[in-house]
Amino acid sequence: MADLSTTLPLTRDSVIEAHKLIQPHIHRTPVLTNRTLSELASTPRSAEDLRGTRWEGRTPARPVLRLWFKCENLQRVGAFKVRGAFHAIERLKMEPGWVEGGGKEKGVVTHSSGNHAAALSLAARESGIKAHIVMPDISIPQKIAATRGYGANVVFSGSTSQEREAVAARVIAETGARLVPPYDHPDILLGQGTMGLELQEQVAAMMADEEAAAGKGFLRAETTRATTAAAGKKGLDAMITPCGGGGMLSGTALSCEGTGIRVFGAEPSFEGADDAKRAFYGDGQRIEKVKTLTVADGLRTPVGKHPWSVIYERRLVAGLYSVTEEEIKAAMRLVLERFKMVVEPSACVGLAVALFDEDFRSMVEKEASEQGWDLGIVFSGGNVGADAIGRLFG
Amino acid sequence: MADLSTTLPLTRDSVIEAHKLIQPHIHRTPVLTNRTLSELASTPRSAEDLRGTRWEGRTPARPVLRLWFKCENLQRVGAFKVRGAFHAIERLKMEPGWVEGGGKEKGVVTHSSGNHAAALSLAARESGIKAHIVMPDISIPQKIAATRGYGANVVFSGSTSQEREAVAARVIAETGARLVPPYDHPDILLGQGTMGLELQEQVAAMMADEEAAAGKGFLRAETTRATTAAAGKKGLDAMITPCGGGGMLSGTALSCEGTGIRVFGAEPSFEGADDAKRAFYGDGQRIEKVKTLTVADGLRTPVGKHPWSVIYERRLVAGLYSVTEEEIKAAMRLVLERFKMVVEPSACVGLAVALFDEDFRSMVEKEASEQGWDLGIVFSGGNVGADAIGRLFG
Repeated sequence: MADLSTTLPLTRDSVIEAHKLIQPHIHRTPVLTNRTLSELASTPRSAEDLRGTRWEGRTPARPVLRLWFKCENLQRVGAFKVRGAFHAIERLKMEPGWVEGGGKEKGVVTHSSGNHAAALSLAARESGIKAHIVMPDISIPQKIAATRGYGANVVFSGSTSQEREAVAARVIAETGARLVPPYDHPDILLGQGTMGLELQEQVAAMMADEEAAAGKGFLRAETTRATTAAAGKKGLDAMITPCGGGGMLSGTALSCEGTGIRVFGAEPSFEGADDAKRAFYGDGQRIEKVKTLTVADGLRTPVGKHPWSVIYERRLVAGLYSVTEEEIKAAMRLVLERFKMVVEPSACVGLAVALFDEDFRSMVEKEASEQGWDLGIVFSGGNVGADAIGRLFG
Repeated sequence: MADLSTTLPLTRDSVIEAHKLIQPHIHRTPVLTNRTLSELASTPRSAEDLRGTRWEGRTPARPVLRLWFKCENLQRVGAFKVRGAFHAIERLKMEPGWVEGGGKEKGVVTHSSGNHAAALSLAARESGIKAHIVMPDISIPQKIAATRGYGANVVFSGSTSQEREAVAARVIAETGARLVPPYDHPDILLGQGTMGLELQEQVAAMMADEEAAAGKGFLRAETTRATTAAAGKKGLDAMITPCGGGGMLSGTALSCEGTGIRVFGAEPSFEGADDAKRAFYGDGQRIEKVKTLTVADGLRTPVGKHPWSVIYERRLVAGLYSVTEEEIKAAMRLVLERFKMVVEPSACVGLAVALFDEDFRSMVEKEASEQGWDLGIVFSGGNVGADAIGRLFG
């Protein structure tokens, strides 16, 4: 990882700089809409739906939500993580003396739950840099195979962040490799934030094109139009991203600074995985240890120090919400069956909040005008094997 | 169904007429490419891969195939069947005296394995026409629910085509409804063939745009580019579609007549589901009875009379190929895991042929120039529940 003294400040302009640097290496993934899901999000849940949930007995909220999905499941390596990884590698190559000191041969190392591992391996390979990847031994076989497929050296560890970091430290001592952590570094944050820039631009362009497209019958119903065209709207009102280590959430928040677009984070609640939410609405002290086996396996880590400075200390995130395992699976089922798109469980927490979290939904009802909100939802990744889908729904 | 005396002749021009009629009602679904799948199709299989298959011991073929996927899984009701259904309804409304004779109230009826049922229900509802749907009692629950969701009256029957047709005849006697068969009618063929027109146009446009797009880094790798850009190519060399009743295959063949694009059909081989292939390479006599429970549940029917006249008698289809249940599932797994797209098993037979059928692959090696072929593959539908994916791969 590039030395902290050489990193750019955590600002929207730096996200724009990062985008210029990584654009040749990444996909500009499509933004899609889905009438069925927008209609579902805009339909009040019934008293029956709320029975047995934490909102039993509450009057169901009546938000109007037009959903815009940023399909990072179609990103290279199947996840947004390539954004941060390519940015980290490009910045590392720019660090004075690193290449000259044999940096490429010494390589890079990371500890990761999977997608960052594949992303860093790819980014390193494209620059001819060695990559050592420390992975939990419970990682899904597909992710391990993908990482090895990119030519990386895989080293196994236990599944807590402490165990992984210890093994990474050993690799550094042995090889001289530079650590590229999965989220807790400014270069990673700024890289992930480039997703937010694209989502802003794409939705604004789609809104401008919408009338023309509607007239032509091009992908009119389920696949490109929100429930009701928002006449005269120029862009999104809000975005919601998953929050694990917080790289994507904090980067997205930076990308929206000064634009008026509110940014929210979504977490699983299972076994305390909602560490960011608890700290955010608690005493503001970042929670440093989490041990959860939530089905959202990309979101098992506690939020990092750098992300937290953006999310909480600078108040760039407007709120955090958490969803149950069942809500995550229900959202994933809808995406598979109605959107015909494969997304991993971690990618479904934002949609689950929009559909099922009555706190979020009543907030939207209060904050939005009658026109409702245009909400950007990040499908952060699509790396889930057919076998894993089978275990989830079989 | 419109009376046969009022239908258009089976020509490419009639497909163009059909397209004008149905365009306001359907999606122009996207055409996508996928580097991983094109590379896989262009990699010779190993002797090990062929062990235990019907090609054991044969020298693996070395075709070059750039694959272009027409995503009818993103079509309305999740399948291409809306094309034929809307065309049938529009033509019926044009039949002299039908509306005036109370046709809309008497309604329409069909026997279907599922997607045609949902498609006809939707098309009928949008014109205020009653729909009665005869469905096999083993249809997947999601398809039954979808059909009822479009307001149709569902009537159950056994699963052979004979059993279904008998129940449909009873409904006609009781209600005066007009039969709209799932494939064996010129209006249906011509409607389905509109897919082929769009695929031709879209690939030609994408080839023209390719250089510009490549320069911009827009969806460069896995999701829009074939393995190697085919410099100077103006369109597809060939298309392959699934063949059940043959409506899509024959309509597509009509859409390509005179264009130089070859059209192939793909079938499951399980329990004799490859009726069209057997007749095509046999004595040319259409096989009228098939009883199979292939996993490709949309392809369990024998090919119809009208489709057969185009496929075989007019020699508009260049060849038929069949694949095993395991090959269909392997193709579906690749689409789920590498393309991140949900397709139903029936939609995977064309890809399975391109990847696994050594007869097809060696034919391509022989027929194509060194540049290889640009091959259009039809993802015909995406209606498979998460539970069914679970049963297939769990």
